[in-house]
Amino acid sequence: MEKETFVPFQGIKNDLRGRLMCYKQDWSGGIRAGLRILAPTTYIFFASAIPVISFGEQLERNTDGVLTAVQTLASTSICGIIHSILGGQPLLILGVAEPTVIMYTFMFNFAKERPELGRNLFLAWTAWVCVWTALLLFLMAILGACSIINRFTRLAGELFGLLIAILFMQQAIKGLVDEFRIPKRENPNSVEFLPSWRFANGMFALVLSFGLLLTALRSRKARSWRYGTGWLRSLIADYGVPLMVLVWTGVSYLPSESVPHGIPRRLFSPNPWSPGAYENWTDMVHVPISYIIGAFVPATMIAVLYYFDHSVASQLAQQKEFNLRKPSSYHYDLLLLGFLTLMCGLIGIPPANGVIPQSPMHTKSLATLKHQLLRNRLVVTARKSINKNASLGQLYGNMQEVYYQMQTPLTYQDPSARAQGLRELKESTIQAATGMGNMDAPVDETIFDVEKDIDDLLPVEVKEQRLSNLLQATMVGGCVAAMPFLKKIPTSVLWGYFAFMAIESLPGNQFWERILLLFTAPSRRYKVLEDYHATFVETVPFKTIATFTIFQTVYLLVCFGLTWVPIAGLMFPLMIMLLVPVRQYFLPKFFKGAHLQDLDAAEYEEQPALPYNLATQSEFGAGASHLGEGEIMDEVITRSRGEIRHTSSPKITSSTPTSANDAKSHQSPRLSTEQSPKYGVRGTYSPKTREARLSNLGRSPLNPELKKQDKK
Amino acid sequence: MEKETFVPFQGIKNDLRGRLMCYKQDWSGGIRAGLRILAPTTYIFFASAIPVISFGEQLERNTDGVLTAVQTLASTSICGIIHSILGGQPLLILGVAEPTVIMYTFMFNFAKERPELGRNLFLAWTAWVCVWTALLLFLMAILGACSIINRFTRLAGELFGLLIAILFMQQAIKGLVDEFRIPKRENPNSVEFLPSWRFANGMFALVLSFGLLLTALRSRKARSWRYGTGWLRSLIADYGVPLMVLVWTGVSYLPSESVPHGIPRRLFSPNPWSPGAYENWTDMVHVPISYIIGAFVPATMIAVLYYFDHSVASQLAQQKEFNLRKPSSYHYDLLLLGFLTLMCGLIGIPPANGVIPQSPMHTKSLATLKHQLLRNRLVVTARKSINKNASLGQLYGNMQEVYYQMQTPLTYQDPSARAQGLRELKESTIQAATGMGNMDAPVDETIFDVEKDIDDLLPVEVKEQRLSNLLQATMVGGCVAAMPFLKKIPTSVLWGYFAFMAIESLPGNQFWERILLLFTAPSRRYKVLEDYHATFVETVPFKTIATFTIFQTVYLLVCFGLTWVPIAGLMFPLMIMLLVPVRQYFLPKFFKGAHLQDLDAAEYEEQPALPYNLATQSEFGAGASHLGEGEIMDEVITRSRGEIRHTSSPKITSSTPTSANDAKSHQSPRLSTEQSPKYGVRGTYSPKTREARLSNLGRSPLNPELKKQDKK
Repeated sequence: MEKETFVPFQGIKNDLRGRLMCYKQDWSGGIRAGLRILAPTTYIFFASAIPVISFGEQLERNTDGVLTAVQTLASTSICGIIHSILGGQPLLILGVAEPTVIMYTFMFNFAKERPELGRNLFLAWTAWVCVWTALLLFLMAILGACSIINRFTRLAGELFGLLIAILFMQQAIKGLVDEFRIPKRENPNSVEFLPSWRFANGMFALVLSFGLLLTALRSRKARSWRYGTGWLRSLIADYGVPLMVLVWTGVSYLPSESVPHGIPRRLFSPNPWSPGAYENWTDMVHVPISYIIGAFVPATMIAVLYYFDHSVASQLAQQKEFNLRKPSSYHYDLLLLGFLTLMCGLIGIPPANGVIPQSPMHTKSLATLKHQLLRNRLVVTARKSINKNASLGQLYGNMQEVYYQMQTPLTYQDPSARAQGLRELKESTIQAATGMGNMDAPVDETIFDVEKDIDDLLPVEVKEQRLSNLLQATMVGGCVAAMPFLKKIPTSVLWGYFAFMAIESLPGNQFWERILLLFTAPSRRYKVLEDYHATFVETVPFKTIATFTIFQTVYLLVCFGLTWVPIAGLMFPLMIMLLVPVRQYFLPKFFKGAHLQDLDAAEYEEQPALPYNLATQSEFGAGASHLGEGEIMDEVITRSRGEIRHTSSPKITSSTPTSANDAKSHQSPRLSTEQSPKYGVRGTYSPKTREARLSNLGRSPLNPELKKQDKK
Repeated sequence: MEKETFVPFQGIKNDLRGRLMCYKQDWSGGIRAGLRILAPTTYIFFASAIPVISFGEQLERNTDGVLTAVQTLASTSICGIIHSILGGQPLLILGVAEPTVIMYTFMFNFAKERPELGRNLFLAWTAWVCVWTALLLFLMAILGACSIINRFTRLAGELFGLLIAILFMQQAIKGLVDEFRIPKRENPNSVEFLPSWRFANGMFALVLSFGLLLTALRSRKARSWRYGTGWLRSLIADYGVPLMVLVWTGVSYLPSESVPHGIPRRLFSPNPWSPGAYENWTDMVHVPISYIIGAFVPATMIAVLYYFDHSVASQLAQQKEFNLRKPSSYHYDLLLLGFLTLMCGLIGIPPANGVIPQSPMHTKSLATLKHQLLRNRLVVTARKSINKNASLGQLYGNMQEVYYQMQTPLTYQDPSARAQGLRELKESTIQAATGMGNMDAPVDETIFDVEKDIDDLLPVEVKEQRLSNLLQATMVGGCVAAMPFLKKIPTSVLWGYFAFMAIESLPGNQFWERILLLFTAPSRRYKVLEDYHATFVETVPFKTIATFTIFQTVYLLVCFGLTWVPIAGLMFPLMIMLLVPVRQYFLPKFFKGAHLQDLDAAEYEEQPALPYNLATQSEFGAGASHLGEGEIMDEVITRSRGEIRHTSSPKITSSTPTSANDAKSHQSPRLSTEQSPKYGVRGTYSPKTREARLSNLGRSPLNPELKKQDKK
């Protein structure tokens, strides 16, 4: 995380310097990935477009058609394209979010009742709101407000993430319930709103949305399916969700001959792009001066909201466990958001900001991509070497060369990094080789099982580039033109997709995992340890975990309750910002420092143990955790947070790369890794550590093998 | 299996002698199980009653209401009660099955067009058919036709099992499709048959049946859930399926205010018990003599069908992997079936015979019960000993005593059995104890983790008794009285239940597992080996497995196709009987003997390696495979057939307890078990064996630990 610096422009300057260094590689890396970049692009495009369309529909109902899905799509697309090219952190996904919709609804209700404004001057007035918001965002960016981003600990970020998941799920349920009712804007005398057809529509909606939800969830796990060839499984895992949207849209047409038009309900056609939209800024002079000044009030709320939302989305997209190598860019991105907000206001569309859960979803999908790319290159290299009758030493050398060619320029420039990296592979293969014969003899596949051994070795890495973001934003823009096709999607598929997004955002959220832990039978708690490598399970007493989690849950429910309160609901981000002082001053009074540190590591509480310099980067290769198999990739990235958290892969932005605590807990895995060099992430602890963990859970470790088995 | 003896009455005499020996224990054992017996009873009651009701509805449509669900329920109940008391093998479940329904439909269509018979004399004529059938069954039983039951190998039994699963699934799909149509016997002008309500009904049916199917399947796995306390999980696993029938019936009433009566469709009310039914035998004299003689033709078909169906259902309920201890009773049961058929014919109800998949389902559920009972007793004993500060030796002694008290009288009488049994537990705990201190010191839970260690130790055993069968048959009889309640179950829930039964019968069917293997990516085939311990995967080349499986699949499809042919469809059991010569004379020409033996062990091809005597029984304790955890119980019983097959636990009926082949493949697991005494079923092979297996699959075993991991 950033050093807390409040010198004006310092943060922006640092961000720009860091990102410019890798700007060229951001593009070349994306292009080199070739067609495979389409998988994460499509995945994120759907995750981005579908909620935006749905929010647009909501906005259209709430603003009497002044704003529609066309505007929300346009805003998401334009802001996304600009951010992907000029933005700092290209992993961040921009979009029109639910809070913006709520805010605009509130402003419309305010404006339409004022004769001085009315429906006609509504967009002009929101332009003023955007002007003020932009100014506030500029101010915050310049003064370094993002420096305090590291005060938003896991506690706040994960609570916010779970809140968004709840809101998505609420939208899914609400949408499904509405399928049984007559929509407001429709003629209630149409044949499709007869009680019988309404009931039929509702039941059909249940089938379609649950169908989408269950198949989409299952398709994401295709990589670990037992059946089908590898490429088929990859294809399904990569494109399964869009494919399922297609499939279930197809299913929705199956009974079209026996049902009246309008069953199942489909996306509503938005009004065409309003012709006067670009003349917005000329209208702005007609807004009375008092309202121009008054616009400052909603502007502060939006600014606070955007500051928080944008930064936390960026933070969640750059979590430690992703082992990112390129720097963050909070200050500069906030500045850019100011400009984007200004632009959106002037052309009369709602502004977009960094969104959750799409941003972390984007990073996750890129991690899978990077893994595949690295793997393919290494497999090819290894095969070539084996065909040339290379010795194990040569094979290793060739592979290391390729590995480093694929790293970011920063790593590649650092000569010490070369010495590490694939060292573990060498060790393990050499062991095997000495066990079987001569080290200098030609390698064959019995010594080095190409496909498998390379999988075992690759660390979690993310393909950091700008192309996927640019492409997905462009595709969102294309949706405006593709409206006639999009209108074929049943709304019920949409609700299923909302539920899918809510569920997809849960794994990896340690708060969620702790909630589940509360419901786990005591005799099975050790499984949590094995699955998530949640270190807190061994170091913190269960009662403390429970108290902490219940506190957090109550806080979450208060936040959720607040969103139901008509206007005060807008303040819910303030509730989450309030968690900063709560975490810093209130919680330490109730929890031991060490426990708090394990449950919710706050870097500001630690002393930097080592001065940061470029050389620590070289630790990456050795320190990064190693993957099990390609197919457990998703799991590793999303679920095993706890353990990966403790690997020393400091990002270039970090001023506190390893705390004393981290270093210690990191030691024992390293030791045991040497004993069994290729045991993988899920078993990087020695049997001794294991026993200690188990006995901490009140279990005798008489038969560890069996305990491992029963997971199957 | 039986020795092939065709001396008249010999088979029946042997059966009676064997079963009488344990008759008392059949009852006392059931009663001692206490309330827990209700779990398998309820489970089987539902599995038995629901298809019988559905077949009854089918019969009512096909016979113009002469026979209804009341008659099928009565037959199932009466035959079930008699069989549970007087029958040989109490694990066998009797019921009116689909072939009987088809047969009766055919006979009704024949009779109603003959003026001499007509609708009125139909039952009298079927009584004559039953008389002939009974005579044929008596003849077969007396002459020892069941001696050739061991010529029905896995090939035939599993093909038949899969065929039944397909028929059940077909019924589920057909039922669901019909929910969108107007039923024949109803007034098509009713409001609920308007196109809109029909569509609504169909969609509702989809929701209800998939809801039942998915939740029922999930509830069966409750024992291995991570969440909830142990008793809750047990309760859900035991009673989840009936509970789900209740829940989804409840759900079907949720929209009752907004839908017309008749949506969703519910079970049709059968006509009341026809008053003249008991006077059937007086009518019999009115049947013309030519028809009495002609009745012999359908009688032969039914006799062949029943002979096959009854024996195979009994065989599948007594598979080797269940480690049954009480003898089989094929001949005597066939004799009893003759009497039951006679009785049913005379009182004018369709006869019941042994049914698949209910009979093997019954045994499986009793295996879970036995496991729980043993476990509870041993836990209590171990706790007591620990509280009394007993040493490990004493603890072990006490537990062994209890263990043998719970065995069948046969085992208990055999003194040599006592020496074995829990030996493995002793070895492993002693190892732990010597590692930690003194052997004579009081045991505490760090040395002997009561709950866990006992689970690891218990072998697959079945609570063989008569009570569950008697109770379920009585409950089926109670259904006649409970008709007003049963009528509340929506038919769509029924279809979901049919699909559930079809899917539940698949795991453990090696034929099915081989079909799946064909679709498994080559790199994952080793997983099949780990999951099912299917030994053939290592010993037989993949091409041979594929050829064998494709042959079997084509044969299955031919059988299934045959069921669609109007009258010839009745002959489908003949197709399966044809498999006996196919297996014996045709297949050995295309497959190597050793491969065939691994894919489809036929005992008649082997030489008995050891003379059978009571002492071999003592091998049971040591040779039986040991369970992993309680929660993988279901899995072990249903999925790990392959391996359990090779453990030497000869049943008292077996004349060829261990083949040379079996003994060999059994050896290596035993060796490795000693190295890691409590590794459990799923890992009873040494790393060396493992390597051999993996390399056989074209994989290098460089990193076995990891390969185990990726299953998680």
